[in-house]
Amino acid sequence: MSCFVAVDIGGTQIRAASYPQDSLTPYKLNRMSTQAPGSTPLERLIQTIASIWPVDDNVLGIGIAIAGPVDPYRGIVLTAPNIPGWEKVPLKELLQDKFKTPVCPGNDANLAALGEWKFGAGKGHHNIIYMTISTGIGGGIIIDDRLLLGEQGLATEIGHIIIDPDGPMCGCGGHGHLEAMASGPAIARWVEQELEKGRQSVLSASQPVTARDISMAASQGDELALNALHRAGTIIGIAIVNFLHIFNPSMIILGGGVSQSKELLFEPIRAYLRSHVMTPNYLENLSIVPAVLGDESGLMGALALVRQSFESTTKS
Amino acid sequence: MSCFVAVDIGGTQIRAASYPQDSLTPYKLNRMSTQAPGSTPLERLIQTIASIWPVDDNVLGIGIAIAGPVDPYRGIVLTAPNIPGWEKVPLKELLQDKFKTPVCPGNDANLAALGEWKFGAGKGHHNIIYMTISTGIGGGIIIDDRLLLGEQGLATEIGHIIIDPDGPMCGCGGHGHLEAMASGPAIARWVEQELEKGRQSVLSASQPVTARDISMAASQGDELALNALHRAGTIIGIAIVNFLHIFNPSMIILGGGVSQSKELLFEPIRAYLRSHVMTPNYLENLSIVPAVLGDESGLMGALALVRQSFESTTKS
Repeated sequence: MSCFVAVDIGGTQIRAASYPQDSLTPYKLNRMSTQAPGSTPLERLIQTIASIWPVDDNVLGIGIAIAGPVDPYRGIVLTAPNIPGWEKVPLKELLQDKFKTPVCPGNDANLAALGEWKFGAGKGHHNIIYMTISTGIGGGIIIDDRLLLGEQGLATEIGHIIIDPDGPMCGCGGHGHLEAMASGPAIARWVEQELEKGRQSVLSASQPVTARDISMAASQGDELALNALHRAGTIIGIAIVNFLHIFNPSMIILGGGVSQSKELLFEPIRAYLRSHVMTPNYLENLSIVPAVLGDESGLMGALALVRQSFESTTKS
Repeated sequence: MSCFVAVDIGGTQIRAASYPQDSLTPYKLNRMSTQAPGSTPLERLIQTIASIWPVDDNVLGIGIAIAGPVDPYRGIVLTAPNIPGWEKVPLKELLQDKFKTPVCPGNDANLAALGEWKFGAGKGHHNIIYMTISTGIGGGIIIDDRLLLGEQGLATEIGHIIIDPDGPMCGCGGHGHLEAMASGPAIARWVEQELEKGRQSVLSASQPVTARDISMAASQGDELALNALHRAGTIIGIAIVNFLHIFNPSMIILGGGVSQSKELLFEPIRAYLRSHVMTPNYLENLSIVPAVLGDESGLMGALALVRQSFESTTKS
């Protein structure tokens, strides 16, 4: 039998699984923490893959999702902010030498988009914007059934589009980026500022507020929390209006922790779109839906990538 | 012999030309005003095409660039703001019935991008953003050697991305769109406002200012005019930073009247990019160049489109 291996590596956890050639049900799945004394993240990555390596099967390829910018053409991890020492790691080459099978690395948010398109909320669509809104904001874009990668593979840094040139500083050093204004921490920061101004809320200024707290408070009708999600929805709405005018997609998929607020976030987004698209045509066949793969999105994306790569190789 | 016909129709002028199958030198070229008493724009369009129709040659197809949004899949002109009565015109069907050859309509800015990529400044590149900055701001985007069209063909309305949600009203009714802030009329409006405030300039508040006047004054060192182009360059720079982070192209092509200001506009754009991209990688292999096809861009784009369509039909 033949199978694929899919891997997802972030700053906290490595997950690897082997899948039969045409199935989404893994033969074997294993997790390991990325960082631990006595071994490097790369050694732990190799160990995790080895732990799920099939004994009798022919592995057709390894797909791997990485939390950081990746050069997908050369298979180099440019940097992985949460994995110590990962700068310009030639991961494709290293893992191919080790496992003697083709290795396809990709950025995790890009691959999450691919996963949602192939196996999740976006099945059957051809033009999709996927956004993940949590500690950061990332995403991936499918155009005419192809993942947008760009000349060097640096495309779809959609958390880093400028919403307000004079806005708050972003983790990347820029100003007024979408991520700096509507990510979980950005929403929490706004609520904390409002609390400091003396606004009433079930949330308290005496302890750090999280986006999760805000979502819960909003679902209980807390006005400040509702305002915070409405504000975030409006800001995300600005970004999405731009994406509609640029890409004219048929689906927007929203994933990540902040999207768990569902309609409390989605409704202000929809309201902004209704009043700000150039013509209603952009909304006619547009679905705005939550991501469905959750924590599996990286792994599913890596699987989609390696399958796609295998199919295109065998076809040509 | 076989040939292609290319057509460009705007509010003022219709141009049509016939080209040998593998040449950019037309057999015949004709122009006609779009509007005149006694005939409709459609009748005049048909007349212009008929006037360059080859006597002995086999016409393999007609490509046609239209100043307005087009559904390129169904071949319907959705609306053409400057051509009276053109709302939902099934142009593909109408012209196919008339001329008995395949007809490929497309938006003129989209096709200008295609033309610059195939025959102009973008030859050999795979990922290009083309922007035309004149009375309006439009453009076209090439990704992996394909024109971005979107689900309904409404993609790349790049003049209508939001730069400042509280900014001036756009012709489309939106607020703070790129077009409302950095098109020729927007630049002129800003200069007029500054003149009214009493700022010194060779330009005069007593008569309407045009972007062309500003460009000339700037080239003579007029400070207000230089400020106006610097301001426009910065605003266009914001848009381009977003496009770099979204698309990671290898080339930005700038066309349209305002781009004639060349370095007076390009330098502030470059300066903004240098200080605002997430990482210098985005600029490493990036060229920012003027369009080279000028007034020919629509016609060349229409030719590129019909050729491409013919080749893809004969291949499959």
